[in-house]
Amino acid sequence: MAKRLKECRVTVVGLGLMGASLCMDLSRDGLCREVRGVARRTEVVLDAFFAGAVDLVTNDLHTGVLGADIVILATPVWTIVDMLAEIGPYLWPGTLVMDMGSTKAEICAAMDDLPLGIQPVGGHPMTGKETSGFTAAEEGLYEGAIWVLSPLERTDPSALALAAELADAVRARPIVLDAVRHDRLVAGISHLPFLVASALVEAVIAVGEEDPLIWTLAAGGFRDTSRIAASDTQMFLDILSTNRTAILEQLDHFTAELSALRTLLADEDEAALRAKLAHAREKRIGWQRQLEIDN
Amino acid sequence: MAKRLKECRVTVVGLGLMGASLCMDLSRDGLCREVRGVARRTEVVLDAFFAGAVDLVTNDLHTGVLGADIVILATPVWTIVDMLAEIGPYLWPGTLVMDMGSTKAEICAAMDDLPLGIQPVGGHPMTGKETSGFTAAEEGLYEGAIWVLSPLERTDPSALALAAELADAVRARPIVLDAVRHDRLVAGISHLPFLVASALVEAVIAVGEEDPLIWTLAAGGFRDTSRIAASDTQMFLDILSTNRTAILEQLDHFTAELSALRTLLADEDEAALRAKLAHAREKRIGWQRQLEIDN
Repeated sequence: MAKRLKECRVTVVGLGLMGASLCMDLSRDGLCREVRGVARRTEVVLDAFFAGAVDLVTNDLHTGVLGADIVILATPVWTIVDMLAEIGPYLWPGTLVMDMGSTKAEICAAMDDLPLGIQPVGGHPMTGKETSGFTAAEEGLYEGAIWVLSPLERTDPSALALAAELADAVRARPIVLDAVRHDRLVAGISHLPFLVASALVEAVIAVGEEDPLIWTLAAGGFRDTSRIAASDTQMFLDILSTNRTAILEQLDHFTAELSALRTLLADEDEAALRAKLAHAREKRIGWQRQLEIDN
Repeated sequence: MAKRLKECRVTVVGLGLMGASLCMDLSRDGLCREVRGVARRTEVVLDAFFAGAVDLVTNDLHTGVLGADIVILATPVWTIVDMLAEIGPYLWPGTLVMDMGSTKAEICAAMDDLPLGIQPVGGHPMTGKETSGFTAAEEGLYEGAIWVLSPLERTDPSALALAAELADAVRARPIVLDAVRHDRLVAGISHLPFLVASALVEAVIAVGEEDPLIWTLAAGGFRDTSRIAASDTQMFLDILSTNRTAILEQLDHFTAELSALRTLLADEDEAALRAKLAHAREKRIGWQRQLEIDN
């Protein structure tokens, strides 16, 4: 008999931006029977408790997952992989195990090693914020965000339905997507932008060493283009090492595009430069418009 | 005897985002004696008039500048250069001629050809918005923004003071900066980000041709990093052609930084990658914090 979210004890492991924001929505709206938090640092355990984001909270992973109907792992990718290897024996048969990691192939492979009877569904809510940690958490973070769900072959449809119910309950938009395809696509729209932003900051640092006034002049163009470079370093190191091939491929595409623009600029080929820039502009404006319609 | 802004007839030529927003602030707060607008398209002339952004408006450049104490050119860079060659004979001696163009060296050179007695001050308010046109204009656009002023050798200190008074009156923060130094610095924090953003959009378009779902997944990281690619194409073509050398230099710095990150990723050198990414993150966060303190 399939469970509904309302009857479930939900354990969220990792109370950073993603995990804590989820706890807040679940608690505030009474979406499930119980919200439990697991955090490594005592400071975060206390913060989450006193903020009323959780019904109970612990820094012990085994205690945290015991008796849960849904376990959601919300840490950097390699930590999720490690925890998946650890928690199996402590879970009830039928437990739904989800995650909020930024890459899916490594995690879904590790999920497949969970004991039979456990129901794994990989996931990635595309909230796209560069801040991190419990203090950055906020109610309503998932509203309107795409929440990718990557079920395994072994996953029961009722478990996938429960995962989608949870995403839906916090007003995200669940879509089901193969793990490898997910990783390839986010390499282009998230991981590549991060590396590009980081390189941009490094380039400006280099100029700033000679002329620090550049930091005073830096305005909207730099602010937006470099924002994602402020993202959590460990989170992105895990992303980079679990999606290396796809990211290198996207990097090379990007470098080829930039190099084409450079050649047109150096050659003063204004007509071709105009065509390319107008094309990118049109596509960017069209995407933004569609986004506003969808939300 | 030096004029104060309050006594001046101000003519703004070009009623796009920058020019029209300036007119709105000048009119709303009664900062000067008269606000005149000049726009090429009849539609914009009518829009500006009925929005109450100007006291009078015309599509004739000569009529617009006649009798003005301050003329502010707010069009793409090459149009500013062309107008500077044209308006000289129609200006009163002592008229302050300013501009809001995104590069300064070409414009300041053209300003030096104005008749003697005319007072030129190059300028660039760093508002950093990617939208354009009269419909994007808004009151308060300049609040807190750095407004670069580039006087010429021939410029009288009282003319520079009047230009600074105007920037200050719309709550911008005027700073005096040499035209060539300005162009070199903005190549890094504005023109390079534009090319990078455009190349990023092109790279995502290429993936999207095979798998259009990438546009659905695209979230905050892509949104921010690519935003400036939606900027007006003609404005940026003029920027690129008037600041080519500095931009090519910054492009090459950036490509070298990105290539260094690529090598570390391909070599799986996590320690060095961590150091570089953490360095960029720290600098980006520090800059943002300083920006918030300043504003």
